[in-house]
Amino acid sequence: MLPVFDALEGSSLYTDMLKVPDHQVAGHKAGNGKLGPLVDNSGRFYKPLQGDERGSNEVSFYASFSSDTRIPVHIRRFFPNFYGTQLVEASDGSGLQPHLVLQNLTLGQVNPSIMDIKIGSRTWPPQATEDYIHKCLKKDRQSTSIPLGFRFSGLQIYESKESGFWKPEKRSIKCLSADEVKLILRKFVSSHVSEKMDLKPDCTFASVVYGGSAGILAQLLELKAWFEDQTIYHFYSCSVLMTYEKELISYGKSPHAEIKLVDFAHVVEGKGVIDHNFLGGLCSLIKFISEILTMPDERTTESSSEDFQKNGISEGGTP
Amino acid sequence: MLPVFDALEGSSLYTDMLKVPDHQVAGHKAGNGKLGPLVDNSGRFYKPLQGDERGSNEVSFYASFSSDTRIPVHIRRFFPNFYGTQLVEASDGSGLQPHLVLQNLTLGQVNPSIMDIKIGSRTWPPQATEDYIHKCLKKDRQSTSIPLGFRFSGLQIYESKESGFWKPEKRSIKCLSADEVKLILRKFVSSHVSEKMDLKPDCTFASVVYGGSAGILAQLLELKAWFEDQTIYHFYSCSVLMTYEKELISYGKSPHAEIKLVDFAHVVEGKGVIDHNFLGGLCSLIKFISEILTMPDERTTESSSEDFQKNGISEGGTP
Repeated sequence: MLPVFDALEGSSLYTDMLKVPDHQVAGHKAGNGKLGPLVDNSGRFYKPLQGDERGSNEVSFYASFSSDTRIPVHIRRFFPNFYGTQLVEASDGSGLQPHLVLQNLTLGQVNPSIMDIKIGSRTWPPQATEDYIHKCLKKDRQSTSIPLGFRFSGLQIYESKESGFWKPEKRSIKCLSADEVKLILRKFVSSHVSEKMDLKPDCTFASVVYGGSAGILAQLLELKAWFEDQTIYHFYSCSVLMTYEKELISYGKSPHAEIKLVDFAHVVEGKGVIDHNFLGGLCSLIKFISEILTMPDERTTESSSEDFQKNGISEGGTP
Repeated sequence: MLPVFDALEGSSLYTDMLKVPDHQVAGHKAGNGKLGPLVDNSGRFYKPLQGDERGSNEVSFYASFSSDTRIPVHIRRFFPNFYGTQLVEASDGSGLQPHLVLQNLTLGQVNPSIMDIKIGSRTWPPQATEDYIHKCLKKDRQSTSIPLGFRFSGLQIYESKESGFWKPEKRSIKCLSADEVKLILRKFVSSHVSEKMDLKPDCTFASVVYGGSAGILAQLLELKAWFEDQTIYHFYSCSVLMTYEKELISYGKSPHAEIKLVDFAHVVEGKGVIDHNFLGGLCSLIKFISEILTMPDERTTESSSEDFQKNGISEGGTP
């Protein structure tokens, strides 16, 4: 088991080398006197421990997970490496504070395109307090979590040297229709990323990023197979992070398309039951991505519900 | 399209032949002046149309589904046949009332063992009213729907000529632990079905009922594959009905183990998104049944969470 509070000697010298990460798309950000994660030059990511149960719960999860021999190697690679916790100078100037020390997932990447997608239609564990459930349920209903089984927590899509990244406002990517979500998932693998929703993404990179035997869809399907079976953990409010480097493709290289699971502050014991909430959302995301590969030319979904409307089923369907 | 209100000539003569079904395990029951479904001798099941939107929604679903050419034949067999609607003498003596005319799913069965399992951790569609959501959420949280992704709506398990059926009280089968649910799923395929929870079920019939290329697990997996793909319907508050005839096994015959989907009053349009809520619950049920086949000797689930507890993750895990 890894040390939980490993205070560093000479930490002020050490923390001189820590800096604000270049490519964080979700969560609290460091800088301007605010508390947020930091990175060093050796590939480590320092995430401040949330002061309440969430911090200790995330540490416990990483400690449990990293020593659990039941996790297959091909699944372990979907999780950030864990290097214990350390007291380091916090980014908000509050002095030495405990941080989780994790793998920096965008190390060495120059212009990574990133999507942070929170999985599951329900972000609250059954045992949570009434207040917490009420808060989460409201967000789940206002976002795409309830209708689609997942929601965007943050994203940046690299377009080109000239136009840089497309980084939509966080609040603008939570309350979307299924068609708008499809559009963003298509933009993620397209050569141009216009702000205008009416510009059709070309999905030029779909086959090398989403497709192929090592692409994102293949990785999601591996993860799905594990979730159909594992009853150890339930991952509430956890995200799948998808990253790749668009520029590598133009050099004829692999774009390093990768998925990682992140954010484990709300993981609870599975107690012999699969995480049907995470699995359902994951399958929904898989369906969206599969459709981009099988239908790279855009289509609307309207045709699928025509018959139903003709026959008079109301949209509500429920008194 | 089938006729929606096909009033019968001479319906009083006709309805003399209708009777209360022998093997209904869930829903309102006919008899003693109460409104409930009826059956005839030719294999038809007459379900009174609920007076509100639920009735018209269920008719619309059956009409839409029965004429939808996108439904594969091997999936259609998991749904009751639909014969339109008819005005028949209602069981509560209120005169001619509209009824859905469906296939009688237990026709010809003498002592069927039946489980009615409502699938999905969420029984309310996103578009439902606040009152309805509140009511459903309460039931979902109080039952096994939220933790397990499904709950028992009713069941009867045949034991023998001497002791007949085990029909537990409805309220007693909704709020159960995962281990208690496992026990019932094991009892369903066991030769003795004691009321005592401490008697270990023998799972004698697991391999012929749950297992095999045409068994219940194989049928559930076929259904699952369709739910991973279909975006036409979302089946809220819908049940999987599992039936088989134990006595046939002793005659060396197939026990006719079958699954059917029933109760479509809360089906809504899928609008291009898979039914991740139903799919998640279905996968959870599949995992429970798979475990019975791979571990016919009873086991507890405690071992799976030991490590997690050792490492200090609280059961709640969330502030």
